[in-house]
Order: sequence, then structure tokens, then C-alpha cells
Amino acid sequence: MPRYRAIVAYDGSDFLGFQVQSKHGVERHRTVQGELIKAVNQMGKNPVERIKVVGSSRTDTGVHANGQVVHFDLPFDIPGDAVRKGLNTILARDILIKQVDQVSEDFHARFSSHSKRYYYRVSTQDYIDPFKRRYTGHFHWHLDADRIKQALPDLIGEQDFATFAASGNQTATTIRTITRAEVEVKEDENELVFTFEGNAFLYNQIRIMVGVLLEIGTGRRPVDAIPALIAAKDREQARYTAPAAGLYLDEVAYNG
Amino acid sequence: MPRYRAIVAYDGSDFLGFQVQSKHGVERHRTVQGELIKAVNQMGKNPVERIKVVGSSRTDTGVHANGQVVHFDLPFDIPGDAVRKGLNTILARDILIKQVDQVSEDFHARFSSHSKRYYYRVSTQDYIDPFKRRYTGHFHWHLDADRIKQALPDLIGEQDFATFAASGNQTATTIRTITRAEVEVKEDENELVFTFEGNAFLYNQIRIMVGVLLEIGTGRRPVDAIPALIAAKDREQARYTAPAAGLYLDEVAYNG
Repeated sequence: MPRYRAIVAYDGSDFLGFQVQSKHGVERHRTVQGELIKAVNQMGKNPVERIKVVGSSRTDTGVHANGQVVHFDLPFDIPGDAVRKGLNTILARDILIKQVDQVSEDFHARFSSHSKRYYYRVSTQDYIDPFKRRYTGHFHWHLDADRIKQALPDLIGEQDFATFAASGNQTATTIRTITRAEVEVKEDENELVFTFEGNAFLYNQIRIMVGVLLEIGTGRRPVDAIPALIAAKDREQARYTAPAAGLYLDEVAYNG
Repeated sequence: MPRYRAIVAYDGSDFLGFQVQSKHGVERHRTVQGELIKAVNQMGKNPVERIKVVGSSRTDTGVHANGQVVHFDLPFDIPGDAVRKGLNTILARDILIKQVDQVSEDFHARFSSHSKRYYYRVSTQDYIDPFKRRYTGHFHWHLDADRIKQALPDLIGEQDFATFAASGNQTATTIRTITRAEVEVKEDENELVFTFEGNAFLYNQIRIMVGVLLEIGTGRRPVDAIPALIAAKDREQARYTAPAAGLYLDEVAYNG
């Protein structure tokens, strides 16, 4: 059973998140993983034992991906590019398989990853653009980007991000390492685009961090609010979660 | 009954076109006009005689607008900007009222217009981008933009565009005047963007013209194909209609 790694892009708007949701073995909603499982099993000629598809990250309802990574095993050995073409023929157009490679049997999309990069698009227009509503968070209060830029370095490093984890976070520890936290101002498009890179992120962590950064941008929180928030380890102190529509899983990195 | 003119943007993906479709007075599908009629009547306190909403153009299923223009009469006199805000509160987020002005009683969104501008986005990537599938036509054959640029001026002028009218066109004459026909190559985005301006267009005319221009771009038709096609007045000679998703009604112009 050769193992394959696939890089997957999707418009998350019409999915109830990445993770398959089933009750008594019946899928209840359209999910990215559910669609991938169906496509991979169709391609694998529906073997007796259903082929599993494992993803690097369980993106939420409405969250997008340019570079989600999944792995699966096929019951026959064919070139990665043939797998890519075959899956794209089967899948609906809001999922795109960008690349497929054969990998060693011990590769695991989730556990082998050493870092992830996300970006978050904020539309700052004073109205909700019909063409952006699915693809950006919308925040029409005046933002001072310099205040946000001053605050961003406070997120860098190995820290306990318990304040920034939504209830429902199920990981053993809330300590994570962030290696990159930046914002780009796109004046022409009335957008701010945040980029975050780290070893892993807690449930809703990026959307809660963006929420705090936007509140810093409006002046509602002081520029140096983040160290105290981190020290508090208390979700109640950071209650605004930026909308799912602005978030993109951009790249997952692996060793070797 | 003061008359109002509204400039309307919409993501056409989730509408069965602009024009309301009803059978025995019951709406059968979600349409832009249908949504506008509901919102305007709600705002007008549902008067006994239902308020009509008249549009400049009946855009097809999946076609978008940045600047569709409509008119309607309200049973009371309030400022245009209050009408704009009120309607945006009622409408779903895939329709945006950009501007509302009071106009004279003889203004008519369709008959008072003297020209319209459309653009058409073609994605030339070799795969269908999940984030563009709703917003561009997709054409992955190699296109020579210089060939298209050479052919475009042949569309300019007052000509009989019968070859470029889909069956279902119901206008008395197929003579139309095109004043602008251009293409811009956006290398970074792997897109071609066509712009067309004219006094009015026939049913599906722009999508059929784009189809011919793309066939000229691939070399399937000669660069000088258009004059002969126009002379033929025969739809059978231009059968490829570019997809609705790439088309945008950008602006409608009025005298005064």
C-alpha cells in the first residue's frame, strides 16, 4: 500500500469544516475530509477496508486553505501526478488537489509537520463587499496599522497561549511557539493581511489573536496588551474571535 | 411617490439571474430583482399596491454586477442615503446597494440609459482555482493576446450583431453600437480582462463575442474572422458562449 501526500486548496465557504462528521456511520454534513475520503475510495476502486484520509489541520467551518496537507494509502502503485489528475476529475470545484507525491510509509500529515503558516485577510471597507464576504473578515472601525505592528512581536516565541484557545481546545498543553507574526497593509484593496507561522496552533488561536490585534488597532486595548493577556491564561480576557471567512491555511512544512 | 435610482452590486453566483420568475404569482427561484422587490416593499411598509423594481439589464444566472441600476417609487419622501442604509440592512450579503438618489419621475433605469460597460474576466491558469471558479471564466488553452488585440477593433461601431445573439433574444433589431472593446493582460493573476462598452447588448452577446475572441487567441479562428462573422448574421457560426461566471455589468450611464 504506497502512501501519498497531497497538497489541497479549498474554498471553505460551503463546507462544515475539514473534519468528517458522521453519526452511526452516516455523514451528516459536507466536509472537506468527507469529500476527499469519497474521492480517494472511488479512485482506489472502493476496497473492502475503507481508505482513510488524514489531514494536518482540522480547519473550521468557513476557513479556507491554499496548502492543507493530507495523506492516504492506495491499494496500487501509480505516479503521484496521475493520482492528482484522477482526484481532480472526481472532486467538486471548490476543492483542488495541487500536488501529489509518493512518500515513505511513516509519513503522517499531522504528526510529521514541524510548522504551519496561516494568513488572515481583513477587509477594512466601510461596507461588506459582496465579492469579499466569503473570503475576508470585515472590520469597518478605523484601524491604526502602526499600533498593530508594534504589538505583533509580543506574540513571538514559545509561550503559553491559553488566553487564546477557544473552549473545545483538546490539546494536552497550551504552550506553542510562534516564529512569525506580521501584517501587510494593502491600501489599494482596503485590506490588512496578517501572516502567522508557528509549530502548531490551538483551537481558534489565530482568529482570537487577530481579534485582539484589531482591538489594539482601534485603540480599545493598549499597544502593550499582549504580554498581560498571555500572563493571565484566561480566555475571558480575549472574547472577540475574528470571522472564519478571513482565515487561510497557507502552508504546512515537513522535515526533509 | 418620489422615484429613486439605486446602484447595485451583486455576486451573481447564488441567483437564478436578475429577472424575477414567478408562476401564478409565486416566486420559484432566488433572483436579484425578487430580493430587491421584497426589500423595497418591506421598507415601503408593504403598501396595498406592490412597489415595482425596474432594472437596466436582465443579467443571466451567475452573471455579476458592480453597477447594475434600478429604479422604484416609495410611498414617502426620505433621503436617498437613508434608503440605501435601510435596504442594506434588509438584504442578504451577496447584494449591496452602493448608492441611492432621488430622481425625476420620468427617469427609467432601462429606457433612460445611453450606454453600458461590462467586463469579462478569463482565468488562464491550467487548473480551475477554487477561489476564482465563481468569478472568472476558465480557459486553459494557450492564448496569444496579440491576436486578440488585433481582432478587437473589428467589433467597434454600429453593426448588425445577429451572429452574436443567442436564441431567446427578443429585441426588434440586432443592430447595436459598440464604442469600446479592449483586453488587459494581468500576468500576475493569470487573467485576461475584456472591457466592452456600447449603447446596449443583445442576449448573451458579450459571452459569445468573448468566445470568438478566445478562439482567435488560440489560433482556431483567423485574426480577421470577425467581419465575416458579422456579415454572415448566423448564430451557428459562433457557437461557443463563454461561461456566465466571468461577466460583470460594471456601469450604466445616463444623460444628465
